[in-house]
Amino acid sequence: MTPGPGVARTVLPKKFQVSGVNSGVRRYRPDLGIIISETPAVAAGVFTLNECKAASVLYSKSILPASNIRAVITNSGQANSATGQKGVEDNFRMAAAVAQSLGCDTHQVLTASTGVIGVPLEIEKIVQNIPELVERRGVTAEPFALAILTTDLVPKTVSTEVQLENGSVRITGIAKGSGMIHPNMATMLGYFLTDAEMPQGLAAELLRNANDISFNQISVDGESSTNDCAFFLANGASGVAISSDSDRSVFQKALNEVAIFLAQSIARDGEGATKLIEVNIHGSPDLALARKAARGLVMSPLVKTAIHGEDPNWGRILARLGADSVPMTLLNQMTLKLQGTTVFSDGAPQVFDIQGVRDQLKSDEVVIDVHLNGGPYSTSAWGCDLSKKYVEINAEYLT
Amino acid sequence: MTPGPGVARTVLPKKFQVSGVNSGVRRYRPDLGIIISETPAVAAGVFTLNECKAASVLYSKSILPASNIRAVITNSGQANSATGQKGVEDNFRMAAAVAQSLGCDTHQVLTASTGVIGVPLEIEKIVQNIPELVERRGVTAEPFALAILTTDLVPKTVSTEVQLENGSVRITGIAKGSGMIHPNMATMLGYFLTDAEMPQGLAAELLRNANDISFNQISVDGESSTNDCAFFLANGASGVAISSDSDRSVFQKALNEVAIFLAQSIARDGEGATKLIEVNIHGSPDLALARKAARGLVMSPLVKTAIHGEDPNWGRILARLGADSVPMTLLNQMTLKLQGTTVFSDGAPQVFDIQGVRDQLKSDEVVIDVHLNGGPYSTSAWGCDLSKKYVEINAEYLT
Repeated sequence: MTPGPGVARTVLPKKFQVSGVNSGVRRYRPDLGIIISETPAVAAGVFTLNECKAASVLYSKSILPASNIRAVITNSGQANSATGQKGVEDNFRMAAAVAQSLGCDTHQVLTASTGVIGVPLEIEKIVQNIPELVERRGVTAEPFALAILTTDLVPKTVSTEVQLENGSVRITGIAKGSGMIHPNMATMLGYFLTDAEMPQGLAAELLRNANDISFNQISVDGESSTNDCAFFLANGASGVAISSDSDRSVFQKALNEVAIFLAQSIARDGEGATKLIEVNIHGSPDLALARKAARGLVMSPLVKTAIHGEDPNWGRILARLGADSVPMTLLNQMTLKLQGTTVFSDGAPQVFDIQGVRDQLKSDEVVIDVHLNGGPYSTSAWGCDLSKKYVEINAEYLT
Repeated sequence: MTPGPGVARTVLPKKFQVSGVNSGVRRYRPDLGIIISETPAVAAGVFTLNECKAASVLYSKSILPASNIRAVITNSGQANSATGQKGVEDNFRMAAAVAQSLGCDTHQVLTASTGVIGVPLEIEKIVQNIPELVERRGVTAEPFALAILTTDLVPKTVSTEVQLENGSVRITGIAKGSGMIHPNMATMLGYFLTDAEMPQGLAAELLRNANDISFNQISVDGESSTNDCAFFLANGASGVAISSDSDRSVFQKALNEVAIFLAQSIARDGEGATKLIEVNIHGSPDLALARKAARGLVMSPLVKTAIHGEDPNWGRILARLGADSVPMTLLNQMTLKLQGTTVFSDGAPQVFDIQGVRDQLKSDEVVIDVHLNGGPYSTSAWGCDLSKKYVEINAEYLT
C-alpha cells in the first residue's frame, strides 16, 4: 500500500479521475470535489443510521446499489441537513449540474455533503463552479481528498494493487474525518474506487464487510453524524473480473486493509487527538459482543482521558467492559494488557511496573489487548484520546 | 423540602441515626459512614447494571429486599471492585463488625463502597473504627453525607414531611455523585430513609419508580460505575402506615421529589461542571423512546461542549435525537426550544435572536425542551456541561 499524501501521489484506478475547487463557500480552501468514472460503474453505499439524514444521504441511498454511476459530487462547509424541502431541491440541483456537464442522467450522479447542520447550501456558488470542477479533473486522488476536508488536519488517501487470477486491479481509498474549522458533527465520508469488474451484489457485499471492521469500529466522540456515508465504485476498466472465490477473498482482504488504513487515519486525526488508541478483543464467544466491547473502550471518556494522561488506570477499562455487557464470568478469566504488559488476569490485579507502563504510554499509539479466553472471535476498534483541545474546539467556536 | 446542608440541619426520620468518622484510609476527611435504624426496617435496593459489580453490590443485592435491616455501612476511598475473593471477604468483615457493635445478625447490615477500582479495602482500619462510628451516631444527616463523598464538592441531603391519611411521616434523602480527589468512576450512591410503615413489596416498587425518573435519568459522562446503588429503608417508627391508594400516591410523589432533587444535585456537581442541563421531552408516543432521547442529550459530548461554550448550536441536538432513534417523522414535526426560545419547528430552522439566546445560556441552569407532538409521554433528564476541567480531573491525576 502506498499511503498518500506524502511525496508519492496516490494513483487512481483506471478511468477514474477526480478534481477539487474552491467555489467560494469557504474563504480559501477547496470546498467542492468530484470523482468521475469515464465509464458507468457498479456502485454500492453504506449510510449513517441516524434518523436525521442529510438530503445527500436520502438521495444517494435511494439510488444505490446501481450499475451505471458516473460521478460522486461532494461539498464541504454545509451539511445540507435539517434544511427541509429546500435542502432536497438544492441537493438535486447539485447532482443535475454535474449530469449536465458530463452528459449523463442525474441519477448517475451520487452526492455527499459535510459541514454545519441546519444551514442551507449556497447552491448558486456550487452550481456555477461545477463546469470548472469537471474540466480540471486529473488522475491522482489528492485534489478531491483536500476538497472534502472540513476540520481534518491531514487528507487521507491510500492506494494498492491487487493481483487477481486474470491480472491486476487497483483499489484507491479516500476519506475524511473530524476537524475544527466550524465544529459540528464529526462527519465521516469514505470512497473506495476500483477498476476491477464485478456484479452489483458483490460490490455491496464487499463494501459491507470492509465497513463493518473499519469505519464502524472507530469513534472520536461517540456522536453519529447525519451525513456519514461510504461509497464503493467498481468500473471494470482494468478488464479484470473477480472470477473465483479465491479472487474474491484476495480482493476483500485488500479492500479491508485499505478501509482499516483510512479508519485509523481518521481516528488519529480526531478532534484534539494526540494519540491513536487501538483496542483488540481476543477470544470472544460472540462477535457482536467483541465489537460492542471494543467500540465501548474507544468511546469511554474515562479510558480516553486516562490515556491522554498516560496513566495505566486499568480499573476504568474493566468497568467499561462490564458496563458494555461483557459477562462477569469472562471478566474473571480475562487477561488485560496495556502496551503488552499484563495488568489484570485470573480475576485479580497483577503486580506490574507502573512507571514502565507509564513510559510506554507516552507513545502516540496505545494498544489495549483484552483476551477473554472464551471463544473464537476477535475484533479491533480504533479511537483517540480525549484532550482539553477537544473541549476547546467544540465549546469555544460559536455557531 | 428543606435542602441541606445550609444553615438548617437535615433531620432524619424517627429512629434513624447516622454517623461518620475518619478511619485513616483517607488523610483528613471522614471516609466511613453508617446509617442505623433502631428497629428493623423494611428495605429495598437498586443496583448498577454493570457486569463488573463491586463486592458490596453483590452482597447487598443478595440480601434485598428484606424486612429486618438495621444498618447501612459505607466506606469511601476504595471501591472494593475487581478485588477478587479477598474483596468478598473484606466486605463481609465490614458488615460483621457492624453487626457485632449493634448486636444483630450480619445479614441485617447492608454495605456500599466508593473509590478507586482494583485496590483492596484497608479492612483493618475500617473494622477498628466501627465501634467509634456506631457510638457517635446522631439525628441529623450531614455526618454521613460528608463521609461518603469522594470528589463531590457538596454533600447532598434533603428532607421532607409527608401528610398521609393517618398522620405525617418523614422522608430523608442522601446521595453522592462524582468528584475529583482520586478520580475513577463517578459512583452514585443514594439512600432514602422513612419512618412510614409499609410492606417490603411496596418499598421495592416505590424505590424503583422514583429511581427510574431520577438517578436513572442523570449522566455526568456516560460511564456506568461498578458500585452504583440506591437503598430505601422504611422503619415504620412514625406509627403511620401507607394505608390507601391515595397515601401511596402522595408518598410516591414526595419520594420522587426527593430523588429528583438529589439527582439534580449530583448532575450540578459533576466533575468539572459549571452548568446544570435539564432536558424535557414532551409528547412522545413511547416512554422508553422519551427516556432514551432525554438521556442521550445529557450524555452527548457535542451538546455538552456547546452548552459549556454558551452556544445555541441546535443542530447538534437534532443530530443526537436522530442518532438515538427518534424517527424522522417526529423530528420533522417537533418544536425545539433552548431556554424557552424556539430554534427549530415544522421541519425547518427558525429565525431567532441568536445573541439573546447566547445571553440566556450564560445562566448556570440550561433547559432544553423537545416537543415531539406525537403522543402522551413526557420525561426529563439532567446532566452537566463538559469542560476542560473534566479532562484535567481525569487525565492529570495518576493512578
